[in-house]
Amino acid sequence: MKEVSLSLIGFGNVGKGVAEVILNKHQCFKEKYGLDIKVVGITDSTATIWDPDGINLKEALEIKRSFGSLKFWGNEYEIYDLKPSEVVREVDSDVIVDVTNDKNAANWHLKALNNGKAVVTSNKPPVVFKYKELLEASAKKNMPYLFEATVMAGTPIISLLRSALLADSIEKIWGVLNGTTTFILNCMEGGMTFEEALKKAQELGIAERDPSNDIKGIDAGYKSVILHNIVFHPFDFKKAHIEGIEEISEREIREDFKKGTVTRLVALVEDGKVEVRPRKLPINHSLAVKGTSNVALIESDLLGELVIKGAGAGVKETASGVVSDIIKASLKTKYL
Amino acid sequence: MKEVSLSLIGFGNVGKGVAEVILNKHQCFKEKYGLDIKVVGITDSTATIWDPDGINLKEALEIKRSFGSLKFWGNEYEIYDLKPSEVVREVDSDVIVDVTNDKNAANWHLKALNNGKAVVTSNKPPVVFKYKELLEASAKKNMPYLFEATVMAGTPIISLLRSALLADSIEKIWGVLNGTTTFILNCMEGGMTFEEALKKAQELGIAERDPSNDIKGIDAGYKSVILHNIVFHPFDFKKAHIEGIEEISEREIREDFKKGTVTRLVALVEDGKVEVRPRKLPINHSLAVKGTSNVALIESDLLGELVIKGAGAGVKETASGVVSDIIKASLKTKYL
Repeated sequence: MKEVSLSLIGFGNVGKGVAEVILNKHQCFKEKYGLDIKVVGITDSTATIWDPDGINLKEALEIKRSFGSLKFWGNEYEIYDLKPSEVVREVDSDVIVDVTNDKNAANWHLKALNNGKAVVTSNKPPVVFKYKELLEASAKKNMPYLFEATVMAGTPIISLLRSALLADSIEKIWGVLNGTTTFILNCMEGGMTFEEALKKAQELGIAERDPSNDIKGIDAGYKSVILHNIVFHPFDFKKAHIEGIEEISEREIREDFKKGTVTRLVALVEDGKVEVRPRKLPINHSLAVKGTSNVALIESDLLGELVIKGAGAGVKETASGVVSDIIKASLKTKYL
Repeated sequence: MKEVSLSLIGFGNVGKGVAEVILNKHQCFKEKYGLDIKVVGITDSTATIWDPDGINLKEALEIKRSFGSLKFWGNEYEIYDLKPSEVVREVDSDVIVDVTNDKNAANWHLKALNNGKAVVTSNKPPVVFKYKELLEASAKKNMPYLFEATVMAGTPIISLLRSALLADSIEKIWGVLNGTTTFILNCMEGGMTFEEALKKAQELGIAERDPSNDIKGIDAGYKSVILHNIVFHPFDFKKAHIEGIEEISEREIREDFKKGTVTRLVALVEDGKVEVRPRKLPINHSLAVKGTSNVALIESDLLGELVIKGAGAGVKETASGVVSDIIKASLKTKYL
C-alpha cells in the first residue's frame, strides 16, 4: 500500500466534490491501485486546516455545509491563516491540488514543483498563461503537472492528447467547450429571449452571477489555448480571435432551428491559430451537442477524424478529472 | 536521442502500413520524442530479414510490392527461415511488434516479455484468451504489453480505459466495434440484399474472403472481451452471448430505415457479461455510426456518459494505433 498525502487548496463546489469522491471511494482506490489517499490540508478563502495524520473529510464537509467556512472549525484542528504559497511551503504533502480560481496560481504551482511536489489543477489561467514554465519545471523535477479538469471537466481530452495518438500529427481540433453558452442557445431554440435564457441558466447554477467569461467566449478561449499549448506550442492568449454569443439574433436562432440548423460557440485550434466564434451547424453534426455536454473533433494525418463527447461541467464530473489526476500523480509514472 | 530496435512480425497490410509510417515519420519522431526507431527484423509468412543496423524500409516495401514476399530479397540481406518464436529468441530487439493473425501468438508474446522485450500487438486472440498471463508477465518483468489496435483500430479506446478515468467506476460499455457489419447494413438500408452488400464489401476489401468472423459477430465478440478484460477482469470468451447479422430481414432493414430506425451490431460489456447482437436504434443515436467508423459509449459513476467515435478499420488507421504503442513502449513509463 502506498500512502499519498494531499493539500487541497480551494473548498468551493469543486473542492467539496473532490473531498466527497476521496471520502466515498477511499476503500475502492486502496483495492484498485494500492493507494491510501489522505488529505492533510484543506484551504478555503478563510482558513487552512492542517493535520499530518489526515483530516476527517466527512466532518470537514459538514462544517463547510453548516457554517459556510472552515474558520469556524476550532474543536479538533488548529486553524491557520495561510496563503496558498505558504501552504505549499509549510504543509508537508506529496500532491498540491488547486481547485481555486486564483489567476496568479502559477506562482505557487511553480513553487510546488520546484519543492518536489506534484501539482493537480482544475484552475485554467496557469495552464493558459504559464504553460512553458510549468512544463519545464515539471520535467526538470520529474514531478507530474496534471490538469485534466481544465478542459471538458472529467472527459479525458487532455489525457488523450498527452498520452495517446502518439504517432499522429494533429492538424486541427474543433470543439464546443463551454456548456453555459450551449444551454442558453438551447433555451433560445425553444423560444426564450437571450435574457430569459441567461436568467434560467443562473437560477440552475449553470451560469455564474457574472456570466461574462462564458457568454463573451473567454472561458472557451482559455480552454482552446490550453489545447493549443498541449498539441502545438505555447500560444499567446491575446492573439486568440474570440467572439461570444451576446450579439446573436433571437429570431435567427428560432428560425434556423425550425430548418434543422443550430448555432454553437465553436472553437477551432490549429498550429498558430485559436478562434472561438458562433457557427451554424446542421442539427445532426457531431459538434451540435446539447446542454452542458462538450465535444471535441480531432483531425489528424493517420487516424482521420476522432470525436470525444462527454460532460463539460458539473461537480461530480469535474471531480472525476481532478481525482483521476490525483491517482495518476500518486502512481506517478508507474501506471501506463 | 534514444535508439529503439523493433522486430516486425507480420508483413501484410497492417505490417506494411506500420513500416510506411515509421519510414515517413522517422524524422518527426526523432524531433518530437527524441526516438530513433529502427526495424532490425521483418518476418512475413515466407522469410525473416534481419539486420542489426536497421533494414531499409523503402526497399523492403518495394520488394514486397513487386514480388509478394520477402524470400525473393537476396542481394543485400541474409534470408532466414524462422518461426515467430525463434525470431523472439534469436533477433536482438527492444520491441516485438505482432501484426499477424497467429492464434497461438500468446506463447511467443509471453516468451518475449519474459526475455525482457516489450510487446505491441494488433493481433486479438492473445489479448482475448491469455490476458491474465500476459499482464502478469508484463508486470513481473516491468515490460509494456500494449494492444491499442486490437479494438477500434487507432481510435484510442484502450489508452483511455487503461490510463484515464482512473477515479471512475465503469458500469457499462456499449459499442459498435465491427465496421464490416455496419457497412453491410448501410448498403441494405439503401436497398441491397445481404448477398449484394457482402459482395460489395468484399470487392472494396472491407470484408475478407471468408467473412464469417465479421458477420457472425466473432470479431465484435473478441473486441468486447478485450474491453471486459481491461475494465473488469478476464472473461471466458465461451461465455459471451454472440449473435451475428446473417439472420436479419432485408425488408425490415429497408422499412425501418424509412421510419428513421437503423440496426447495428451492438456490443454490451458489463461486469461478468459480454453480449453482441443486432439492435434497433434511432438514426440520431450516438451508436448509429456509418461506414467503417466505430463508437463506444462508456457509462461510469462520476462522469456519466462518455462517447468516443473514430476509425475502426483501415491500414493507416490501424498503423496509427500500432505505432503509437511502439512510441509508448519505447518511452516506456517516461511519458505520461
